[in-house]
Amino acid sequence: MPDTLDRYLEQHGDRFTSELRELCAIPSEATDAGALDAAARWCGERLVSAGAESRELRVDGAPALVVGEVGAGKRTLICVQHYDVQPAVPLDLWRSPPYDPAVRDGAVFARGVDDNKGHLLLRIQAVEAYRAIHGDLPLHVRFLIEGEEESGSTNLARLLALDATLTDGDGALKEGGAIDAAGRPQLLLGGKGIFYVELRVRSMARDAHSGAATHLPNAAWRLVTALDTLVDRGGRILIDGFYDDVRPPTEAERAHLASLPFEADVIKRLYGIDAFAWGRSDVEARLASVYEPTCNICGLISGFIEEGTKTVIPSEASVKIDFRLVPEQDPARIGTLLRAHLDRRGFGDVELVAKEGTRPYRGRIDDPLVRAAQAVAEEEIGTPALLIPSSGGTSPMWQVCGKRSLANVTLGMGHPGSGAHAPNENILLANYWKALRATVALFRRYADQV
Amino acid sequence: MPDTLDRYLEQHGDRFTSELRELCAIPSEATDAGALDAAARWCGERLVSAGAESRELRVDGAPALVVGEVGAGKRTLICVQHYDVQPAVPLDLWRSPPYDPAVRDGAVFARGVDDNKGHLLLRIQAVEAYRAIHGDLPLHVRFLIEGEEESGSTNLARLLALDATLTDGDGALKEGGAIDAAGRPQLLLGGKGIFYVELRVRSMARDAHSGAATHLPNAAWRLVTALDTLVDRGGRILIDGFYDDVRPPTEAERAHLASLPFEADVIKRLYGIDAFAWGRSDVEARLASVYEPTCNICGLISGFIEEGTKTVIPSEASVKIDFRLVPEQDPARIGTLLRAHLDRRGFGDVELVAKEGTRPYRGRIDDPLVRAAQAVAEEEIGTPALLIPSSGGTSPMWQVCGKRSLANVTLGMGHPGSGAHAPNENILLANYWKALRATVALFRRYADQV
Repeated sequence: MPDTLDRYLEQHGDRFTSELRELCAIPSEATDAGALDAAARWCGERLVSAGAESRELRVDGAPALVVGEVGAGKRTLICVQHYDVQPAVPLDLWRSPPYDPAVRDGAVFARGVDDNKGHLLLRIQAVEAYRAIHGDLPLHVRFLIEGEEESGSTNLARLLALDATLTDGDGALKEGGAIDAAGRPQLLLGGKGIFYVELRVRSMARDAHSGAATHLPNAAWRLVTALDTLVDRGGRILIDGFYDDVRPPTEAERAHLASLPFEADVIKRLYGIDAFAWGRSDVEARLASVYEPTCNICGLISGFIEEGTKTVIPSEASVKIDFRLVPEQDPARIGTLLRAHLDRRGFGDVELVAKEGTRPYRGRIDDPLVRAAQAVAEEEIGTPALLIPSSGGTSPMWQVCGKRSLANVTLGMGHPGSGAHAPNENILLANYWKALRATVALFRRYADQV
Repeated sequence: MPDTLDRYLEQHGDRFTSELRELCAIPSEATDAGALDAAARWCGERLVSAGAESRELRVDGAPALVVGEVGAGKRTLICVQHYDVQPAVPLDLWRSPPYDPAVRDGAVFARGVDDNKGHLLLRIQAVEAYRAIHGDLPLHVRFLIEGEEESGSTNLARLLALDATLTDGDGALKEGGAIDAAGRPQLLLGGKGIFYVELRVRSMARDAHSGAATHLPNAAWRLVTALDTLVDRGGRILIDGFYDDVRPPTEAERAHLASLPFEADVIKRLYGIDAFAWGRSDVEARLASVYEPTCNICGLISGFIEEGTKTVIPSEASVKIDFRLVPEQDPARIGTLLRAHLDRRGFGDVELVAKEGTRPYRGRIDDPLVRAAQAVAEEEIGTPALLIPSSGGTSPMWQVCGKRSLANVTLGMGHPGSGAHAPNENILLANYWKALRATVALFRRYADQV
């Protein structure tokens, strides 16, 4: 089979790369409904050309959930992906335009090429390749490709409720995943939850001349003071009750994590830092990345932000915060606790606007899917495959896997410098082919795996 | 004389208003060198048409200092004004465009119409009117009209050094000034200094996916933490040594201030607040507005500030701060103290970029100029005239008056809702004519005042 797949990729590799650039040229950010529709349509058509059946599910005006079905067998693998992307701003930091995909030095640069369009496409291309070489798939693969993952999968639960069989399956192939700098595949077995919230202060009816700063209230100062009550210098979140529902790692979980290599130096070099944040040692950083929740400022604005000077008391200030959550934290409860925290400290005037919430999910490690993914990853990508209990990021696996406690795993091709959610997002083509080959192998392996 | 001036304003009032709209249509913000040049030229030509001599002084590429000279007598009155304006942003809060001056309900709306183009123009129009009615001025008036007042008068000292006689005089008519809601003229006898600074944090080489917020450093959090060390909840500035050079008010100064009416309710209604900032009572607010320095956030930015959500760890954050200073605080020393404060608390990585500095200045109350201004203000505007030792704002009076300890005074027409430095800046035409009449009267009165 390797020889046959080699030949297939030799013949069709250029087309596959062209398809990647075509998909990444669609600016499917949350604010561009037209582009979201175009990306959904593109995915549906590509599923069909790979031999799958495809349909779009919709609720209200939300982006479509693209459902693809292909193959038959005793197992069903749910392939969870998304076609929406993070905002590309700040544009001036991109070396080539985010929606004009560029190939440089064996890498493809574009917003969403890693997260998640490259991953999504190589799964579909793997279906095509498998069917061309071997005929029908030996298992049932169901694609669930949503368009709101980067906005917290707001409508996914409602979309899945349209057809209760959508989450019937045996395991889930999750979005994302990466290969570390030493070439080892990192298989993620879960993801953190998220609570995204905006805090807004309006201190007075209008901006004022800063000569009155002795007595007119400044919204920026108010917000800074409120913010500085949320996290201590060690990264510990100071909201009362915040940690109540956190399930701490067991001794076995700690031991497993400690046994995994961790490329602290690679990360530090990439981000140009000498030490990790919050005073965390390398070991603490690794443990926290899996088991600790966070309170992160994504954006902050008040008053005059142009070049030059203006002497003004801003009447408005706002901040966007994401809390990454770990089992069994509930985003709705975090919102309630945050409101109570602010009220208790006299910040009743700070308005809280909840934007999105997704529950955390960690699946079983002892499962045929994980064993199959590990085996094909080691054969096609590198040894050893690292089984990491959770990503630091969020995927809607609770919605998909929660009901049946399904295992979930990545089999991805990201790399430490992928720049997901940041300017100059990119993938390495060498990794792309490895992950595609591993996916082709997974179909057979998982069908047979005990 | 009143009758004659009445007739003159009846005949020429429409032209005077047209001139005001013409001057205010020039968008002379600090970043628009062409507009600054145009405004300087406009002022010079208007001085000449009023009967004055005019010239432009320049250093390097800085905006011109327009010098006007007119009249002769034993006294010289230095009329300190500026033709530059604050940035008009945020534009969406303006009811009519900032540089398309609109007249509504007896008010003129435009950026700079109060601060300071209206004040500057009515002084020149007063010269024209006086000369048309009475002939030559009975004193020497020297206009110093600069183009960098809103940026801290960065080059004014160098410009004044080009001709040491520019600051020779007997007293200064200062920019600004207002009439309170009860119709009482507020004569300001000084202004606070300013130290404008930008603090910048760069926490890592690039932005990162917020899934890594457990261990990658967030510039916004870093800045918030640093900021929250600067001021306590009572508005007291926590920088070591900050108050060392503050000259506290004497008992006589306190008593004088306490004797002045203070329209706390008018201010609160205008800004839609129930209480003054920093927990200050009305009496404390009034005292602080004259005698207390401030540390004010003018603008704050980090990360993702567009609509919607993005989950990112910002690598950069910055804040613009103005410190308003009182005698004898020195802006350069405040910069040094701020640097030491940050270093001592472990914020050596917070970059400090000083933008501008002007020393505070309070002039004598017991002076012929102040007596003359008080008399004409009470005759032409309203009774009593309130002698306020200092504005909360900043004018470059230290540069102009410091050498000879000259008295300085406003004779202005602003009102509580003028919106200087804010959207919908405006003046009331009724006030404009009062201040113009008072200025005409001042020329005679100050020439004779003992």
